[in-house]
Amino acid sequence: MTRPIVFATDYGLADEFVGICHGVILRIAPDAPIVDLTHAIPRQDVMGGALVLGRATAYMPADAVYVAVVDPGVGSERREIAVRAASGALLVGPDNGVLSLAWEALGGAAAAVEVTSERVLLHPVSRTFHGRDVFAPAAAHLAAGMGFEELGPSVPVDALQVLEPPGPMIARGAVGARVTGVDGFGNVQLNVTPEDLAAAELGPELTVTGRPAPRVDVFADVPQGALAAIVDSQGQVALVVNHGSAAEMLGLAVGKTVVLE
Amino acid sequence: MTRPIVFATDYGLADEFVGICHGVILRIAPDAPIVDLTHAIPRQDVMGGALVLGRATAYMPADAVYVAVVDPGVGSERREIAVRAASGALLVGPDNGVLSLAWEALGGAAAAVEVTSERVLLHPVSRTFHGRDVFAPAAAHLAAGMGFEELGPSVPVDALQVLEPPGPMIARGAVGARVTGVDGFGNVQLNVTPEDLAAAELGPELTVTGRPAPRVDVFADVPQGALAAIVDSQGQVALVVNHGSAAEMLGLAVGKTVVLE
Amino acid sequence: MTRPIVFATDYGLADEFVGICHGVILRIAPDAPIVDLTHAIPRQDVMGGALVLGRATAYMPADAVYVAVVDPGVGSERREIAVRAASGALLVGPDNGVLSLAWEALGGAAAAVEVTSERVLLHPVSRTFHGRDVFAPAAAHLAAGMGFEELGPSVPVDALQVLEPPGPMIARGAVGARVTGVDGFGNVQLNVTPEDLAAAELGPELTVTGRPAPRVDVFADVPQGALAAIVDSQGQVALVVNHGSAAEMLGLAVGKTVVLE
Repeated sequence: MTRPIVFATDYGLADEFVGICHGVILRIAPDAPIVDLTHAIPRQDVMGGALVLGRATAYMPADAVYVAVVDPGVGSERREIAVRAASGALLVGPDNGVLSLAWEALGGAAAAVEVTSERVLLHPVSRTFHGRDVFAPAAAHLAAGMGFEELGPSVPVDALQVLEPPGPMIARGAVGARVTGVDGFGNVQLNVTPEDLAAAELGPELTVTGRPAPRVDVFADVPQGALAAIVDSQGQVALVVNHGSAAEMLGLAVGKTVVLE
Repeated sequence: MTRPIVFATDYGLADEFVGICHGVILRIAPDAPIVDLTHAIPRQDVMGGALVLGRATAYMPADAVYVAVVDPGVGSERREIAVRAASGALLVGPDNGVLSLAWEALGGAAAAVEVTSERVLLHPVSRTFHGRDVFAPAAAHLAAGMGFEELGPSVPVDALQVLEPPGPMIARGAVGARVTGVDGFGNVQLNVTPEDLAAAELGPELTVTGRPAPRVDVFADVPQGALAAIVDSQGQVALVVNHGSAAEMLGLAVGKTVVLE
Repeated sequence: MTRPIVFATDYGLADEFVGICHGVILRIAPDAPIVDLTHAIPRQDVMGGALVLGRATAYMPADAVYVAVVDPGVGSERREIAVRAASGALLVGPDNGVLSLAWEALGGAAAAVEVTSERVLLHPVSRTFHGRDVFAPAAAHLAAGMGFEELGPSVPVDALQVLEPPGPMIARGAVGARVTGVDGFGNVQLNVTPEDLAAAELGPELTVTGRPAPRVDVFADVPQGALAAIVDSQGQVALVVNHGSAAEMLGLAVGKTVVLE
């Protein structure tokens, strides 16, 4: 009855951090499959990590143990937590909101504990690498069948840190959007849904900073090198350039704002 | 009787695309080992992906299910296919030739189907992320034992797209070569075999754009910093610099041409 | 009784080298879990690889088979070896010292063999890719239960290449340090322990090239953007900048020297 582990961090792959955590997991839960969801969350971008994790839940095993480490406050007073979602999935990470969009997508937080058990922590617990010393072992023990309550004392779920993803600003004929992601192809994801465009009474002939960006259904409808707007695989509006980079063409990066008209 | 899955894409590791596909596979085929052959195929380089996949077959399990996603035509009319090779291996991907050098290396295409089964596709099928919605679930169902014919209607194997890797131009005393790969060490692989050099009556004292590049057997025979030609681990002629980068020294990249004399 | 495999190389992830080795392992030891410790060891940095592997042992399964490939001498006369540590762990790689700090951390080398068995090597053995043709298959056979002595003839353990990690230079009031690592956050690890600082009679008010770098316990004690010295997760002294890169601020990289006063 080993559960799979879904692992996401901002550690990158230039160091051995991810590999060390895999070793820690393997010692405790040798049969647990591990999905490395991503280790390229922008450094210390808690909201970015929360968005990636929240969107991934629909594609992960129902009994997964999520472990997410984006943790600018490591070593400070922020708690280390484990959360049981209403769906039955489990989540482990710092109490800074990085898990919150995932548990919301999984039906809400049903219970939470602070991870303090001496049976779980790797000693001495370092000041800087809680992924190795706290979160990976906690996730592995849960995957191997340890009872949720054995990790540590209960925490009221309404005391947990929760993030609120920023929404777009909608006016008649214009949507003020924020870039929520740029993928490796240069496609620019916005915090805008097709419903937001409809609410702003925008039709298919969009412009972005003066450039035409017509709404199209598929990449193949876009002339090579031309800008367009599509609904991406996560149901969000995205700016794309066929065989090119919309991020480069428009000078956009995560967190920047742009107006669709 | 779960089959292993060999997974190759141009998704890169800067996004969660690969991790999402792993989750999709794990839900369907929890016991299938996954070999991440590479996710660094140059973006939309169908020929590059086909070459990598074709060469890899000799080192992969005989019962593997290959899934390759290099798919500039995603969302257009190109078909999603699965192919059974004469060897018994299975292959899943877009019908743009990216699988073709692999099935040739595996004895040829014995049968093919178009992937259309409602039991296989993830709904709603996105317009842009068929790796997640079509190819990963198809490969996972095959790995978990679903019958090949259950994926969808049969396609004649002679209707499948096939790529022809470009060969060198051979004259007496000269071989016009194309760069087929540059590895992370800066070694430059050419579309040239030792037999091609013999056909051009070239001896061990090669030159490349005027520079001496003697044929040597092993790296250790090359003075530090000097250019040489070796037969690489795939049996191809490669230009190398001991403790240095031949690509940098010669200003070469994939697709460029060079003359060996 | 399959053993897990811990795999570390300087291959990078831009090529399919790591994926090919995974395929080779999977053919021989389909049930062996693989920890990809790191494939981002700086190219041909044998000492760097040895340090990473040595430090990782504390977090890896006790029965692991380590396979490390950092191998500037591939194709030369250096031997391919397997070593049994006193702990029972096994190690496979080139006899250039890359394994030596790991076996020391695992209780010392109890026995060694040269990997020559025709049952193990992939033929034809290439001149350049011993990871695929020698080391991965040797590790996989060991993981799958092949007897250690079956790999090839015994080698006296005192004939094995051993690396000596460079220590700091300690004077009263000053420690001459060398950078042993820079992680992806820009934290600069030094070859200095807290005991070395005490031996130099250095107190908490350190300076580095004239800049104050006070010793602090945790990142959260450092003002944003300020330099400080901490004891990192491996017990080494490291220079850090809260929400910034100490490597960038100080212009430091692996191998450079710096004086703590």
